[in-house]
Amino acid sequence: MNRHISGQYDSELESVRLGFMGMGGRVERQVQTATRAFVTHDVEAAATVREGEDEINQLERVLDDRCIHIIARRQPTAGDLRLLITIMKGCIDLERIGDEAEKIARMAEKISHLPLPPDQYADVQHMRELVIRMVADTLDAFARLDLESARSVISADGEVDTMFRSIDESLSQELHMHADSVMQSLNTIWTARALERIGDHAKNICEHTVYLIEGTDVRHLDRGDGGTLE
Amino acid sequence: MNRHISGQYDSELESVRLGFMGMGGRVERQVQTATRAFVTHDVEAAATVREGEDEINQLERVLDDRCIHIIARRQPTAGDLRLLITIMKGCIDLERIGDEAEKIARMAEKISHLPLPPDQYADVQHMRELVIRMVADTLDAFARLDLESARSVISADGEVDTMFRSIDESLSQELHMHADSVMQSLNTIWTARALERIGDHAKNICEHTVYLIEGTDVRHLDRGDGGTLE
Repeated sequence: MNRHISGQYDSELESVRLGFMGMGGRVERQVQTATRAFVTHDVEAAATVREGEDEINQLERVLDDRCIHIIARRQPTAGDLRLLITIMKGCIDLERIGDEAEKIARMAEKISHLPLPPDQYADVQHMRELVIRMVADTLDAFARLDLESARSVISADGEVDTMFRSIDESLSQELHMHADSVMQSLNTIWTARALERIGDHAKNICEHTVYLIEGTDVRHLDRGDGGTLE
Repeated sequence: MNRHISGQYDSELESVRLGFMGMGGRVERQVQTATRAFVTHDVEAAATVREGEDEINQLERVLDDRCIHIIARRQPTAGDLRLLITIMKGCIDLERIGDEAEKIARMAEKISHLPLPPDQYADVQHMRELVIRMVADTLDAFARLDLESARSVISADGEVDTMFRSIDESLSQELHMHADSVMQSLNTIWTARALERIGDHAKNICEHTVYLIEGTDVRHLDRGDGGTLE
């Protein structure tokens, strides 16, 4: 094993590991605040979430750049390479969790003028608790390299999917009772949303491609989106 | 520059590059078929999309594994490292575009028993054309390392976002006329969906963490999800 032993190298690795944990903590709070804003119709909480979004995007760029730098300059061993790749991929997911939290905050704002429903969103509250625990356990599994924690999140995901399907079905049925046209409008919005997201992903790939084309040296990363090293 | 000149190495790089293009082509067809199924209420086309989903997930795993192997064994130069990282990240987006296509196919099935609306989903059709072009241009920009193509996709994304907002607003208003409760149900479904997706992302990070913990050698990648090298 060609183990790198330089203290500088170790501290670079530790810095991205801690950076990832820190970003995770921010994102976790965004999810907590956004969902609380939704179930309590709290517009101020929703605004807080929207304000925090930019910072998370920035954290993702910085972490990603640092990981690439370490890979390029240090030629990490298999284990360290796995850590760096895990962080690079995990960042993308954290950033998108942040996006979803922001969307929830926007929806909270949209319905805040209505009275709370009689059941106080019982199903969403239940789903919320489970998902917040998943995010916390995810960060914990990463921090402690705890396989059991990681596997519990992976199996909880099936439970969340089932909860979503049940909410989707019962509310869709409710809408259905109003009129078929509502059902159609609803599915049309969903499809438009999916198309919108496909556009986002295509844009992501193109941003990577721009980075691929323009980069002449990893020490001078310019992703064409104003992202800088730190 | 410590340029690798081995023919074997070059063919490894070319193979992942072509693999990415091939995966992109599959995903592009999934988007075409799924959206056609939606706007024409074609359940058979929708079923085809659902059948194609597994293969795309499999392609993503294979490509990702190959990229990691090349990085670990070949210590690629800056430019090659950028190519490999672009492919690894691009794969994730392609796979998620495939997911969205599958969701559109499911929605096509849900509404297929209804008559086509008078406007034949004119707005969605318009959005569809733009997004399909974006996906095609994305692959083209990557294949030819064409900055202009890449930038046209990045700017088209803003147009798609605007189209989505306009569809969302006009249909939400339509729903709003029925009753406030519909508006609430709608936003509740959206929030449940966002929570469901947050769960997916948490699960993704945990799968990377499992891979990080269990891998003892990048030549024996076992991601704990049955994914194999090829």
